[in-house]
Amino acid sequence: MLEELKKLVYEQNMELPKRGLVTYTWGNVSGIDRESGLVVIKPSGVDYETMKPEDMVVVDLDGKVVEGHYKPSSDTPTHVELYKAFPEIGGVVHTHSSWATSWAEAARSIPCYGTTHADYFYGTIPCVRNLTKEEIEEGYEKNTGLSIVEAFKDNNPVYCPGCVCANHGPFTWGKDPKEAVHNAVVLEEVCKMAARAEALNPEIKETPQAMQDKHFYRKHGANAYYGQN
Amino acid sequence: MLEELKKLVYEQNMELPKRGLVTYTWGNVSGIDRESGLVVIKPSGVDYETMKPEDMVVVDLDGKVVEGHYKPSSDTPTHVELYKAFPEIGGVVHTHSSWATSWAEAARSIPCYGTTHADYFYGTIPCVRNLTKEEIEEGYEKNTGLSIVEAFKDNNPVYCPGCVCANHGPFTWGKDPKEAVHNAVVLEEVCKMAARAEALNPEIKETPQAMQDKHFYRKHGANAYYGQN
Amino acid sequence: MLEELKKLVYEQNMELPKRGLVTYTWGNVSGIDRESGLVVIKPSGVDYETMKPEDMVVVDLDGKVVEGHYKPSSDTPTHVELYKAFPEIGGVVHTHSSWATSWAEAARSIPCYGTTHADYFYGTIPCVRNLTKEEIEEGYEKNTGLSIVEAFKDNNPVYCPGCVCANHGPFTWGKDPKEAVHNAVVLEEVCKMAARAEALNPEIKETPQAMQDKHFYRKHGANAYYGQN
Amino acid sequence: MLEELKKLVYEQNMELPKRGLVTYTWGNVSGIDRESGLVVIKPSGVDYETMKPEDMVVVDLDGKVVEGHYKPSSDTPTHVELYKAFPEIGGVVHTHSSWATSWAEAARSIPCYGTTHADYFYGTIPCVRNLTKEEIEEGYEKNTGLSIVEAFKDNNPVYCPGCVCANHGPFTWGKDPKEAVHNAVVLEEVCKMAARAEALNPEIKETPQAMQDKHFYRKHGANAYYGQN
Repeated sequence: MLEELKKLVYEQNMELPKRGLVTYTWGNVSGIDRESGLVVIKPSGVDYETMKPEDMVVVDLDGKVVEGHYKPSSDTPTHVELYKAFPEIGGVVHTHSSWATSWAEAARSIPCYGTTHADYFYGTIPCVRNLTKEEIEEGYEKNTGLSIVEAFKDNNPVYCPGCVCANHGPFTWGKDPKEAVHNAVVLEEVCKMAARAEALNPEIKETPQAMQDKHFYRKHGANAYYGQN
Repeated sequence: MLEELKKLVYEQNMELPKRGLVTYTWGNVSGIDRESGLVVIKPSGVDYETMKPEDMVVVDLDGKVVEGHYKPSSDTPTHVELYKAFPEIGGVVHTHSSWATSWAEAARSIPCYGTTHADYFYGTIPCVRNLTKEEIEEGYEKNTGLSIVEAFKDNNPVYCPGCVCANHGPFTWGKDPKEAVHNAVVLEEVCKMAARAEALNPEIKETPQAMQDKHFYRKHGANAYYGQN
Repeated sequence: MLEELKKLVYEQNMELPKRGLVTYTWGNVSGIDRESGLVVIKPSGVDYETMKPEDMVVVDLDGKVVEGHYKPSSDTPTHVELYKAFPEIGGVVHTHSSWATSWAEAARSIPCYGTTHADYFYGTIPCVRNLTKEEIEEGYEKNTGLSIVEAFKDNNPVYCPGCVCANHGPFTWGKDPKEAVHNAVVLEEVCKMAARAEALNPEIKETPQAMQDKHFYRKHGANAYYGQN
Repeated sequence: MLEELKKLVYEQNMELPKRGLVTYTWGNVSGIDRESGLVVIKPSGVDYETMKPEDMVVVDLDGKVVEGHYKPSSDTPTHVELYKAFPEIGGVVHTHSSWATSWAEAARSIPCYGTTHADYFYGTIPCVRNLTKEEIEEGYEKNTGLSIVEAFKDNNPVYCPGCVCANHGPFTWGKDPKEAVHNAVVLEEVCKMAARAEALNPEIKETPQAMQDKHFYRKHGANAYYGQN
């Protein structure tokens, strides 16, 4: 079932080591088939080098396995909460990519210091709060998803397709698994440059609002003019 | 038309990912044929992996497309202003390479801390000011070009073949597209070493003027003696 | 003798340059056969490019060569002390990998700033004290081993499978040579991200205890649920 | 003439880009034949990709070309002064490798923070002073060599086989071109780790003297026991 989505999810998982975002098995990509409400996700702790499209696991929106010979990623409940809360998205990515994870470990949101950021993420990229002891014990992965959703209650997840979770690492998403991975790559670059820019100028200022608007809207929305079509 | 220049511009665009200066499509190289006043530039948002020489777009000095099946880079109006203002140059490059972009995000000019800098850029490499809201709304890309030209009104664009635009990224140029790309690579290295040198010594001083002169002029001008002639 | 272990130790030594942990010959992996009490270790100062499985050296737990046409790694007495003191371990790795060595040179233990750390190392990764002049002169490599053992007298070497030795570099271990190398790779990533996180936030706090527990125990012990089994 | 030395010097020049120490043509290796007093050196500004052993240039100890169809490296007079002052050395390397050059730009000597440093360089690696305006104008490259020699008047160039020249970059040497390149690679690693270690600990201390002695002398001198022999 969902063979095409499995192939796509597999391919986008393989992009993670290729783009330098994961060490060993520290990352996972999923995609959703909105019609059936089924999610295809990477199996837990399986080597990228030997993984095949048919190893992808199909789960429903309760996180229950519908098809697959492996256990799904241990982060599956987080992915599922994001799909339930953000109906516009079709793919989710989690990694421990080093620059984004450094911001997460520093427990800091990423200010918009430049147009690379503004081209893809509108405004500050939020750092999602730590869970309480109770939330961790009751359902760590599910509550991680809910804490992300909470952080976006006044924020458009399409305009800001990602975040970092405090003391953990980044989650990104997009209209499909490919765009979600693309945003994971962008977030890593943005985090790297923002860290270096702060080191170069303790008095650093955010990008003027008009410039943020210009860059974001030349790539997104009705008046976009970047790229072909 | 301009088949040779298209091939050259294509090849130099391909140098950008090879040299680690671009992620995805975040860069563009152009070249000008001074006789006809026509500029050849990369198409907007096209993948490096599938791009071909015949995909390059030909525009005139008003930025209008003269030939090409794709839309030109959205930064075309910036390139065009540089060609109009700096008659000595034959190639222009824009990237979001990470170290140069970090200086841009920090909104800082790059002081000359060493001979690697002095070998290619004479004196401080300027950080070009932010545009006003009006300039952004009236013509962002064209005014980006004009702001660079303004920053060079007392500066020789041949002696200092590049800059960083505040909260954005670097632009470099040269006598042809190949030299422009060469200068983009040099700028990235110079920005990396300058950032690290500042971190190592808060009391850092610029390179003595006599040493800057020595290095720049042993590579440039009538008395140059570096390389094979 | 011990041909299989030799092959395994050889392969894991080859992982070190492949994973970017060693320059030239700056690293060594060993494995122990607990039944015979014999240790297989890399020869001293032999190039990775030409090294073969049969070049591995077999020593006993006094560090004496039992088989081999080369001298064993000069760090052999350190490995031997670890095998004697930590009966649960089957492999030991020493490198000068750059981020872990930077923490060692800074003479600092690595606080747990995130789940990447908590997934593999429970609590702070200790920086082992410098040896005294007497300890250095009497038996530098052996006493290096004993100083590591001393640092773990109130610490579980299975829960914290590594350390950095002040002004020197990292040692890691595991149930076999493969896990020991895996932990060396993890330590390097953890050290990189912790250094960057501290630079981003001078007020940085350690990962909440409940979150450290969650991550460590979802991968280790009776209730682990990460990965397949 | 000197065909074997040419081949060796060529091969060691090719190591520089392979080891990530040079961008474009920013580096050069030479070797000396002590019997004839002739030096073989890389030609100036020739691409590594097309360079061949027979392109190496032979000069005498006055820096005059004895054989070769190219001009020698513009740094030739610096190499020559080192060969004249340090009779024990057989190879010299100059690069703009990024970490060593950052220390040079910061105009700082490199303290010994760890055993990686102590294994190859005994004590602080000196930062050589800037030349005066007169020295630059009279003979920049020759006086660069003399300033290095001056910095080693109370220092053993065999025990400390390299330095950084203020606002410029590193020079290293060794008993032959291969060892000189080896030391250039080590210096780059040492400079990287020392910079990161300082950032991690503003109160950082140098490696205890007994430990420096131990590491240096286990690799050098009559009592060395590292490696095979």
